[in-house]
Amino acid sequence: MAGSDIRTNNLKKPVDVAEYLFTRLYQIGIRSVHGLPGDFNLVALDYLPKAGLKWVGNCNELNAAYAADGYARIKGIGAIVTTFGVGELSAVNGIAGAYSEHVPIVHIVGCPSTISQRSGLLLHHTLGNGNFNAFADMSASISCAVAKLNDPAEIAAQIDHTLRECYLRSRPVYIMFPTDMVEKKVEGARLETEIDLTEPPNDPDREDYVVDVVLKYLHAAKKPVVLVDACAIRHRVLGEVHDFIEKTKLPVFVTPMGKSAINETHPNYGGVYAGTASAPAVKEMVEGSDLVISIGALKSDFNTAGFSYRLSQLTSIDLHSDHCIVRYSEYPGVRMKGVLRKVVDRLDVAQITAQPAPKWESPPVTPDLDAVIQQEFFWSRIDRFLREGDIVITETGTANFGVWETRFPAEVTALNQTFWGSIGWAVGACQGAALATQDIAGPEKARRTILFEGDGSLQLTVQEISTMIRHKLDIILFVICNDGYTIERYIHGMDAGYNDIVEWRYKDLPAVFGGTEETAKSYAVRTRGELEKLLADKDFNERKGLRFVELYMPREDAPKSLMLTAEASARRNAMTE
Amino acid sequence: MAGSDIRTNNLKKPVDVAEYLFTRLYQIGIRSVHGLPGDFNLVALDYLPKAGLKWVGNCNELNAAYAADGYARIKGIGAIVTTFGVGELSAVNGIAGAYSEHVPIVHIVGCPSTISQRSGLLLHHTLGNGNFNAFADMSASISCAVAKLNDPAEIAAQIDHTLRECYLRSRPVYIMFPTDMVEKKVEGARLETEIDLTEPPNDPDREDYVVDVVLKYLHAAKKPVVLVDACAIRHRVLGEVHDFIEKTKLPVFVTPMGKSAINETHPNYGGVYAGTASAPAVKEMVEGSDLVISIGALKSDFNTAGFSYRLSQLTSIDLHSDHCIVRYSEYPGVRMKGVLRKVVDRLDVAQITAQPAPKWESPPVTPDLDAVIQQEFFWSRIDRFLREGDIVITETGTANFGVWETRFPAEVTALNQTFWGSIGWAVGACQGAALATQDIAGPEKARRTILFEGDGSLQLTVQEISTMIRHKLDIILFVICNDGYTIERYIHGMDAGYNDIVEWRYKDLPAVFGGTEETAKSYAVRTRGELEKLLADKDFNERKGLRFVELYMPREDAPKSLMLTAEASARRNAMTE
Repeated sequence: MAGSDIRTNNLKKPVDVAEYLFTRLYQIGIRSVHGLPGDFNLVALDYLPKAGLKWVGNCNELNAAYAADGYARIKGIGAIVTTFGVGELSAVNGIAGAYSEHVPIVHIVGCPSTISQRSGLLLHHTLGNGNFNAFADMSASISCAVAKLNDPAEIAAQIDHTLRECYLRSRPVYIMFPTDMVEKKVEGARLETEIDLTEPPNDPDREDYVVDVVLKYLHAAKKPVVLVDACAIRHRVLGEVHDFIEKTKLPVFVTPMGKSAINETHPNYGGVYAGTASAPAVKEMVEGSDLVISIGALKSDFNTAGFSYRLSQLTSIDLHSDHCIVRYSEYPGVRMKGVLRKVVDRLDVAQITAQPAPKWESPPVTPDLDAVIQQEFFWSRIDRFLREGDIVITETGTANFGVWETRFPAEVTALNQTFWGSIGWAVGACQGAALATQDIAGPEKARRTILFEGDGSLQLTVQEISTMIRHKLDIILFVICNDGYTIERYIHGMDAGYNDIVEWRYKDLPAVFGGTEETAKSYAVRTRGELEKLLADKDFNERKGLRFVELYMPREDAPKSLMLTAEASARRNAMTE
Repeated sequence: MAGSDIRTNNLKKPVDVAEYLFTRLYQIGIRSVHGLPGDFNLVALDYLPKAGLKWVGNCNELNAAYAADGYARIKGIGAIVTTFGVGELSAVNGIAGAYSEHVPIVHIVGCPSTISQRSGLLLHHTLGNGNFNAFADMSASISCAVAKLNDPAEIAAQIDHTLRECYLRSRPVYIMFPTDMVEKKVEGARLETEIDLTEPPNDPDREDYVVDVVLKYLHAAKKPVVLVDACAIRHRVLGEVHDFIEKTKLPVFVTPMGKSAINETHPNYGGVYAGTASAPAVKEMVEGSDLVISIGALKSDFNTAGFSYRLSQLTSIDLHSDHCIVRYSEYPGVRMKGVLRKVVDRLDVAQITAQPAPKWESPPVTPDLDAVIQQEFFWSRIDRFLREGDIVITETGTANFGVWETRFPAEVTALNQTFWGSIGWAVGACQGAALATQDIAGPEKARRTILFEGDGSLQLTVQEISTMIRHKLDIILFVICNDGYTIERYIHGMDAGYNDIVEWRYKDLPAVFGGTEETAKSYAVRTRGELEKLLADKDFNERKGLRFVELYMPREDAPKSLMLTAEASARRNAMTE
């Protein structure tokens, strides 16, 4: 095929499109590519090793999308390759979640050749109506950019633009890659210059104006607090946030989705603010503040315990990735990163009034070793098991709410999908996150990845345990066995059959999915005593590979924050005019 | 909530919307509803038992969609309930497959209340941009009708219209069901009249014209043959087709997707026609015919062994669900059902020249009991294991092609997804089909459901084995263990790592997923001798519940029809201008 296109003759360093694309993925930080093979992507997959990329080989595409999401949250960006129609549509929910939660994923879809598309052939994996753009159109609303690689003369620029959008806007992009384009030649000389991923600067005058307004209120405030949310993480301003905290010594709080954004052993760290579900001292300080500097807020129902914030816009400064709001004044197009940097540089420490953050009170430890493991106990107990640098993933369900009560060691990274809330996400995301840390630090120095999963949610995506084992990932997986969809029970149908699940022999799963004595070990704990013993077990703490724990908790037990949020949801669902 | 709407006062027999909807599902033939609970559908699910509907409770939504598809292929129509965003998008690939393959599925999506939608709240399961129609828009291109149940005054008529479209057009429909509409009142008196599902008649003059043209060519032809394809099954003309065959005695062939449409023990049955992959006698008779009456054709690449038909339009009559073509004359809007009925009624048997169908030659049985089980051997051997009335499901992969060689007993129903070709479909579809026959005949008289699955494809949807066990379904599941994606290997990458999978302990799966000694039994066969022994085993043949067979076949062995089709695909993918 090489040289078949006349334009190839003008190229300084001709490279195949697949090589170009995958080299770019490597350059922007990707080392492993998730996905499944399918006949429209097979030839492209041959190019992965040459570009230094590892193929993951997931069990299905939804799981692969979740995994690419988890990978991106640790490595900065993720990628998934699927095949036309059947593959890509299976991934759609995972991609939509990444869109909703601001996670950059490059979705590459191997599709029929441009010739087949033009002929409208009745190919397998089509709708039979000659519309080869139907699936791209479906993905357009959950992607910040769509590229159809149909013309070799355009392809290199399309790829560069699309990857840049993905990273800077921190959202998924969709790349439609026809089989006959894989081996077409494009300009390889472009690869000598990496894609510019630096955020474009704000207009300096507008930015200065916003900074002055922010400083005016900051210097005047008597009880200012900082509240850090998901988009501060996703839009990469944590460096600025930490500098701001260090310089001002202001008390800082996180939302549930912002958890782990701030070092929780830091003296200024005050805890989780989530409206009515907050600890009393947290609620009092945040809601009593005369200036809440909110950074990267994503005020969804589950992130606010059912829209239960009691904050006034008159005492708020909201900094976002693409606009800022001070009281009721809006500044569209002014991005928080530049504003925060200048605020840090220009603020006058002498004019800042910093209260001390509320003290964290460790809940009392109950000595009853025969007692069942209740949610309230577990989430405040598990903090002493966690270590500096752990990656902690919580599933939508009791775990996502319970972890609000867990005080993390330093350098922990918490992952959750509180806004999109697709159950099953955490299993795939855990595989991706664990692979990302392995890609960053190597198998010996990879961070531990710890997943708190539900039994109901595990059933949706269980086969990805196989991929964890395949890649020898260092994972501790707790399955909270409580007989079904407890989060749904609290919203509606406490005893309804539709909230029940089949009881599986969970701890036999790793062996069925290819685990051996060496690569995967299973455990079961039913009492506090058994839990204490396990958490103290040296082998459990130190061994590599998968550690799979059946963790029994009562069926109708849930964290209080979940109960409050579920009640609010049930009320909203039933509300009529 | 009841009575809150002023229009309720004018209703003769007020019933809640959920009751109305589910009663209609029951009336059109649905007895079990697939899906998963989610907070936006929970209250609606409470209404299922009252309407006589059983809740299936699948492990994930993609599997549930596949299951609803399999259910519909046996029961006539299927239904799935999901929740907004996360649930429905997981099901999209399954629904797209049903669209592509003409399978009627009612997809009901529990969504946020109309009040929440209007307020644009930042609810969980949303994209965060206030667009509550994004997912319905995505589903619109894979649905033949979309209904948003927002206004109680319209809802009953919307439901009736949508369900009628689903059945008559034999395609999925999408129903968006807000939480605040569940308990609104609609006119229950409408339920006394069932929805009219009879196909609207053709315009009589146009129909008579087409019938005359068909009869002219039919009476004149010297070597006419009949070719029956997928849409003859899906658009419910098999009664007409059988009457036509009985009256004319014409030789009749099926395509791969039409397999089992014709009783394969019938003297007129000639075998599977798939272009170059046909048996020589079949190819000779079909391609040598001077009139091919093609009924419900769906000439996709995989259904034609890579577009390898050698038929002339000048010797073709194509009858379709919404148009007919005789030679080059097209008759849009003239449906085959009416045409076929009149052709049967009006044809003159004396003027029909009917050749005898080609004889079926049973391949010789090799006595080597220690030999490995090869594809060619297996698919011609398994016919003597099958029984009248079995439901036989084949996965996209070697099984879908291998089964072309299997001659079925009478009354067998074959299910495959040859056109859409989503691997993993067959596991879900098998659960749905087995439940459908149980719903029709009761647990004692349900037909056996036999699935031929691949090891690679099983990994995508494996957890639905749990649902088979949960509902005590009568299933024989053969997993063809051949080390990965053999169908992909034949297209590209015979030894590529991306076509490998993790080796699971397949036969331990039923026990892990809740099976007991009584409800699920596992087997493994590696030689012809072991296979013969198993197939002759009385307990294996007669017991109820799940029988799970590891069936080992060589990794690089495939049916010839697959090899031919895969070669054609590889050529087409690589073709450049």
